[in-house]
Amino acid sequence: MLGVRQPEIYGHEILADIETACRTRGSELGLEIDFRQSNVEGELVTWIQEARERVGGIVINAAAYTHTSIALLDALNLIEAPIIEVHLSNIYARDAFRHHSYVSPVATGVICGLGSIGYLLALDAIDKIRAKNGNRSE
Amino acid sequence: MLGVRQPEIYGHEILADIETACRTRGSELGLEIDFRQSNVEGELVTWIQEARERVGGIVINAAAYTHTSIALLDALNLIEAPIIEVHLSNIYARDAFRHHSYVSPVATGVICGLGSIGYLLALDAIDKIRAKNGNRSE
Amino acid sequence: MLGVRQPEIYGHEILADIETACRTRGSELGLEIDFRQSNVEGELVTWIQEARERVGGIVINAAAYTHTSIALLDALNLIEAPIIEVHLSNIYARDAFRHHSYVSPVATGVICGLGSIGYLLALDAIDKIRAKNGNRSE
Amino acid sequence: MLGVRQPEIYGHEILADIETACRTRGSELGLEIDFRQSNVEGELVTWIQEARERVGGIVINAAAYTHTSIALLDALNLIEAPIIEVHLSNIYARDAFRHHSYVSPVATGVICGLGSIGYLLALDAIDKIRAKNGNRSE
Amino acid sequence: MLGVRQPEIYGHEILADIETACRTRGSELGLEIDFRQSNVEGELVTWIQEARERVGGIVINAAAYTHTSIALLDALNLIEAPIIEVHLSNIYARDAFRHHSYVSPVATGVICGLGSIGYLLALDAIDKIRAKNGNRSE
Amino acid sequence: MLGVRQPEIYGHEILADIETACRTRGSELGLEIDFRQSNVEGELVTWIQEARERVGGIVINAAAYTHTSIALLDALNLIEAPIIEVHLSNIYARDAFRHHSYVSPVATGVICGLGSIGYLLALDAIDKIRAKNGNRSE
Amino acid sequence: MLGVRQPEIYGHEILADIETACRTRGSELGLEIDFRQSNVEGELVTWIQEARERVGGIVINAAAYTHTSIALLDALNLIEAPIIEVHLSNIYARDAFRHHSYVSPVATGVICGLGSIGYLLALDAIDKIRAKNGNRSE
Amino acid sequence: MLGVRQPEIYGHEILADIETACRTRGSELGLEIDFRQSNVEGELVTWIQEARERVGGIVINAAAYTHTSIALLDALNLIEAPIIEVHLSNIYARDAFRHHSYVSPVATGVICGLGSIGYLLALDAIDKIRAKNGNRSE
Amino acid sequence: MLGVRQPEIYGHEILADIETACRTRGSELGLEIDFRQSNVEGELVTWIQEARERVGGIVINAAAYTHTSIALLDALNLIEAPIIEVHLSNIYARDAFRHHSYVSPVATGVICGLGSIGYLLALDAIDKIRAKNGNRSE
Amino acid sequence: MLGVRQPEIYGHEILADIETACRTRGSELGLEIDFRQSNVEGELVTWIQEARERVGGIVINAAAYTHTSIALLDALNLIEAPIIEVHLSNIYARDAFRHHSYVSPVATGVICGLGSIGYLLALDAIDKIRAKNGNRSE
Amino acid sequence: MLGVRQPEIYGHEILADIETACRTRGSELGLEIDFRQSNVEGELVTWIQEARERVGGIVINAAAYTHTSIALLDALNLIEAPIIEVHLSNIYARDAFRHHSYVSPVATGVICGLGSIGYLLALDAIDKIRAKNGNRSE
Amino acid sequence: MLGVRQPEIYGHEILADIETACRTRGSELGLEIDFRQSNVEGELVTWIQEARERVGGIVINAAAYTHTSIALLDALNLIEAPIIEVHLSNIYARDAFRHHSYVSPVATGVICGLGSIGYLLALDAIDKIRAKNGNRSE
Repeated sequence: MLGVRQPEIYGHEILADIETACRTRGSELGLEIDFRQSNVEGELVTWIQEARERVGGIVINAAAYTHTSIALLDALNLIEAPIIEVHLSNIYARDAFRHHSYVSPVATGVICGLGSIGYLLALDAIDKIRAKNGNRSE
Repeated sequence: MLGVRQPEIYGHEILADIETACRTRGSELGLEIDFRQSNVEGELVTWIQEARERVGGIVINAAAYTHTSIALLDALNLIEAPIIEVHLSNIYARDAFRHHSYVSPVATGVICGLGSIGYLLALDAIDKIRAKNGNRSE
Repeated sequence: MLGVRQPEIYGHEILADIETACRTRGSELGLEIDFRQSNVEGELVTWIQEARERVGGIVINAAAYTHTSIALLDALNLIEAPIIEVHLSNIYARDAFRHHSYVSPVATGVICGLGSIGYLLALDAIDKIRAKNGNRSE
Repeated sequence: MLGVRQPEIYGHEILADIETACRTRGSELGLEIDFRQSNVEGELVTWIQEARERVGGIVINAAAYTHTSIALLDALNLIEAPIIEVHLSNIYARDAFRHHSYVSPVATGVICGLGSIGYLLALDAIDKIRAKNGNRSE
Repeated sequence: MLGVRQPEIYGHEILADIETACRTRGSELGLEIDFRQSNVEGELVTWIQEARERVGGIVINAAAYTHTSIALLDALNLIEAPIIEVHLSNIYARDAFRHHSYVSPVATGVICGLGSIGYLLALDAIDKIRAKNGNRSE
Repeated sequence: MLGVRQPEIYGHEILADIETACRTRGSELGLEIDFRQSNVEGELVTWIQEARERVGGIVINAAAYTHTSIALLDALNLIEAPIIEVHLSNIYARDAFRHHSYVSPVATGVICGLGSIGYLLALDAIDKIRAKNGNRSE
Repeated sequence: MLGVRQPEIYGHEILADIETACRTRGSELGLEIDFRQSNVEGELVTWIQEARERVGGIVINAAAYTHTSIALLDALNLIEAPIIEVHLSNIYARDAFRHHSYVSPVATGVICGLGSIGYLLALDAIDKIRAKNGNRSE
Repeated sequence: MLGVRQPEIYGHEILADIETACRTRGSELGLEIDFRQSNVEGELVTWIQEARERVGGIVINAAAYTHTSIALLDALNLIEAPIIEVHLSNIYARDAFRHHSYVSPVATGVICGLGSIGYLLALDAIDKIRAKNGNRSE
Repeated sequence: MLGVRQPEIYGHEILADIETACRTRGSELGLEIDFRQSNVEGELVTWIQEARERVGGIVINAAAYTHTSIALLDALNLIEAPIIEVHLSNIYARDAFRHHSYVSPVATGVICGLGSIGYLLALDAIDKIRAKNGNRSE
Repeated sequence: MLGVRQPEIYGHEILADIETACRTRGSELGLEIDFRQSNVEGELVTWIQEARERVGGIVINAAAYTHTSIALLDALNLIEAPIIEVHLSNIYARDAFRHHSYVSPVATGVICGLGSIGYLLALDAIDKIRAKNGNRSE
Repeated sequence: MLGVRQPEIYGHEILADIETACRTRGSELGLEIDFRQSNVEGELVTWIQEARERVGGIVINAAAYTHTSIALLDALNLIEAPIIEVHLSNIYARDAFRHHSYVSPVATGVICGLGSIGYLLALDAIDKIRAKNGNRSE
Repeated sequence: MLGVRQPEIYGHEILADIETACRTRGSELGLEIDFRQSNVEGELVTWIQEARERVGGIVINAAAYTHTSIALLDALNLIEAPIIEVHLSNIYARDAFRHHSYVSPVATGVICGLGSIGYLLALDAIDKIRAKNGNRSE
């Protein structure tokens, strides 16, 4: 089981396509994908809290909440499985207020600027980290 | 042909192992790897300037120079091929002075915190970006 | 059709009175008014995303979220119709943390400090901008 | 009647235990307890707005929203009854971004770092303030 | 009598056209317009000081002096009639040094980003505020 | 034995009354109160250093030195017993230079804004913390 | 000969009264008073430049220009006679942007917060400084 | 009775000379002078607290404590008689850390840069302010 | 025709000498020199606005207004001919508040620290830029 | 002999062309040109240290090291001959991190934004400064 | 005679041991040691003022006052003999607020992080500086 | 074996003399000295990396790189032997940009402002620290 959270899309990618690609890649890797999207910060927080004991990894694109949500930081802090932060665009090449992320300090790793490819690489990363750790968290 | 630059290692990974893994992954992807390491900022700058017309992509881990070198930024600015910035550790979870990167604003994408896996994902990313672009830069 | 969003009121104005006055002025201008209010940031974001292709203009008073919500900025960035930011009070004469607005940089114009009059002027402004543009966005 | 709001718990305390302890202490003090929890900022705002005319005091632990929510500040600004801000941990001994609270400037008092004891002291404080004020707000 | 001050124009509007439109709108509202323009900060200050006892309202576009002139702030502070700050462009969508206004804290309201329409709305606002106040300042 | 330090009073409370109330509450809790007051920063430092091995808890209101005294921080750092920082007024609702406390990061907890009630709650808190810890520090 | 410059008055003092009081005090001290007022920064600069070789001392109240005019600083830098900066109000007890003065670093002394008394004390100060210096600058 | 406090001297003036000059000027003005000096911040605080009901005015040169002592600010805040802050040197022409004074915001007026003359002008100022106020505080 | 503006001189150069040298150099280059000086910011603004359609280049030494005048920035923004900013002294080796120039971002180039030589080099620069551009702006 | 250092070129100019133009202009002025380029900060430092006793002037374009190299500042500080800092582009119209130069405070003068013309003007400036100084440093 | 001041110890060293070691090393060097300790900032200031004409050197560990005391800076500024600032711990590897020292700018040298060894090296340093200066200050 | 690194000298000391004095002192202490100097940051980094397993201590004067080189910090972080940072001048009494050192946080201790004496004290310090540690790192 693998939780993929991905709120509000911006860029030229289409949410459905990303979901399809993630599910395909998940199948190849033998990962069960739980793909969710919400515009409500508190709902994202609740999903992460609920995922605490169930997920083998989290791929999160918190969009605008990346830069403003300490609540997400607190929720992610409870997760022991690997967390990969993904952004479609390169946030470090955009507005200064997008350079700081409350997600990054509690993430295992960050992948940004690679469009929808980033999601697939994130799945690969979780798969490899779990392989390294002997799939202990399953 | 693909240029991989990677100065000064910190962490538990061994430089030679990373080089081997990159060459193996490069072979699988049909990419020619040029793997270099230097402690001298100016040498990195020169390599990037020379690579300008020859590379199909750059994977760069500028280590400490990431945070201090405008010269790297200026050199990378001349590169049209995709640039993937890689860091073994999650720099956003470390000292505040490591949160800013002069490489990021001119990179295509950033991958950090995934150890040596990050280098392999970076090669994958370049391969996929080139596929998308019809390998125009070859 | 014209979308009017207006969360959480502060000041001596009464929400219902403002709605009535807006509807009256809308009738005079031949504008269809869609008047909504929510305390939930994510709901405001969803409304704006949904309005993207339907509205001829947005009048938005984002109250406290004005100063904290990058999510609103991202949602409004998708809107091509004119956006008028309204505040009942003069936010520049209040606490320093109210001087910055994430809405302003993506708004067409800003009207503040004029109480409920500001809403009516905002409707007038949208009407005049649309007249100037030949009502292209209808 | 006394409104106790307490979103998202962190630390070793268990939410249910705190609720029980508060209800017990409330009984001793003759206070009616309304104990609520939500992860959604806007829901907290709505509860506070609704409580405006009904509560004799508010004990609020706004968790992460403490540091980011101007909306909470605006809602609490409408409350005339005493407001006690409570934090389980000592927020001034944690990350710098937890040192600023948007709740504090509009609270009557602040109690932090005392774990679940803080909630009980907060109930005592409200009881004593109301005794001093002749229970005028009942 | 209504004082309209408007130094240095930028944008596609023409000063004479704005003056004509203001005079027309003034006639409709029964307001006497005094339309002035100067590049000299001290002259603007003097005009405002002189207007102190004569005007029923001030519409001011202080252009660049908006951001640098404490002298304007001090002069406007003496005015009891409503003051509407107008800017042709949306100053909050421009250079960071244009985001702060010394006029705003002493203005009744601010209207910006609406081109020459802003001047007309400002006249309407003054008319409506004066109607509300029973034209006490005439 | 319990050390209560409380320099320089501001507000409507009277020092002697607070001392009496503390002694009464101390008797009820079976705590020996040592109540001291000084305007000299170095004297406060010396008292804390001397208290190091004798106190079961410290209730400290460092008044203005709260915001300027690193010497107090260093002295309190040596104390293993619980430390409760008390302020009569809500320092977070006052001047910005009162928002930072050098005492808070080394205190167990903070209680402010509750007037003389705060001292009594602080005694209660120390009593309860000691009860939880099995009175190990006696 | 003594130059007294004093632009734009704020407070309850009346400019004419101050001039009269200064002239009276000047007579007593045997000082020739040149009393001027302007709202134009450049005119103040020119007066100071012209005064360079003629004055035995300058008493300057630069009002709002105090805080914004580097041109005044440059002009006053050319003056060798004593310069006394005067403010009717206590600028350090007002808005933060009034705490910095470009005049102070090049003034001999500063007198503020004493209303019109400040002007008379400034004349006394110049008289005493000149006495100490043997009236060398006459 | 007039309290003159003046800790730690720097510059070419001699403390005894200043005291003599103050006493002479005090005699002329019919003011009783209480001239004190201390290097201990807390002693200055105590003197000011004690002076609260006895003094008709305070002339204070807090030397280095000017820039660091919130305790002085709190003590002076209790004084209703006029307070004149004096500095021998022009603190605004010295190190940046000397530009901020915790005394100034609670002083009636500030006189600096005039050497020992400043003390005499301060006595004159207090005399004149008391004359204006009808010596109400005697 | 070439407009040379140069307000307020500081340093050991004499304004008349600079004008003579500029006129001589102008003759050699076949440039018509219009040499003006003013202490009034608004007059400089007006001259630049008037020059808009007539000049082939502007050499501007805005002295103190360099660092404070957004009005100059706005006026120079309208000029299409080359603008050379000149300073007699090296402003980057002086006070920190002289390091920022509002003229520089809209100037073609900057020459400073070379005394009166800078004016002649500026004329040479304009001559060469115009030669390169085929004297299109004549 | 004249040392010309110029690392890393950006813009449309070609390094060889600039060198040729400099040598030609050097011949006209009777100056011996030593033209060097390096990407290594330490090599630039060594060249400057070696040049200390031999050069009659230095023209330096330190490119990106301009903004980061205190080592260059220290080396240039040893040079008594005139130093002209040159930049092809107008660094004050580019990224904020290019606005500060460690070279400027120790340079005689700065010329920027004039492309390759800047180098020739710099040679002219050194020639004229040396003429003024009687060629003392030869 | 040599003055050694050393307030409040932190670390594993014992004050008496340091005093003994200093006295032993003083004997070897033929230096008379005056070893003092106080928690009161003003007492340290007085000691330094008194030492002004008697000491051949000062070794000072101002502990927490290092970071807050401008009064110490002013007192040390009067000392002509060499001043060595000592800290047992490496203050630059601790909290950010310990990185700034008001003692350092007026000290001859700084030694920190070497535990009690630092005191002995400081005595050696004073001995060597005095040898170099021909013991002029004895 | 003891590595002494000391790049770029400033001040009145001569590099050769310091080397001689260090070698003499090294002989007395029985320490083998490896004395190196380079202007190239990367070379210093390489030397430190190579020294990792061989040195019993490092004395480093990183001159200007002290303030800019995170690469030095990363290299020194790998060293387990004691590191003494030395500066000939008192860097805390110089420019503000010299107050921060990237070497200090990873050094054992810092000695500055004592000229060439500092190097000898640094050797003594390493000798004493090694004596304390039982020369474990030899």
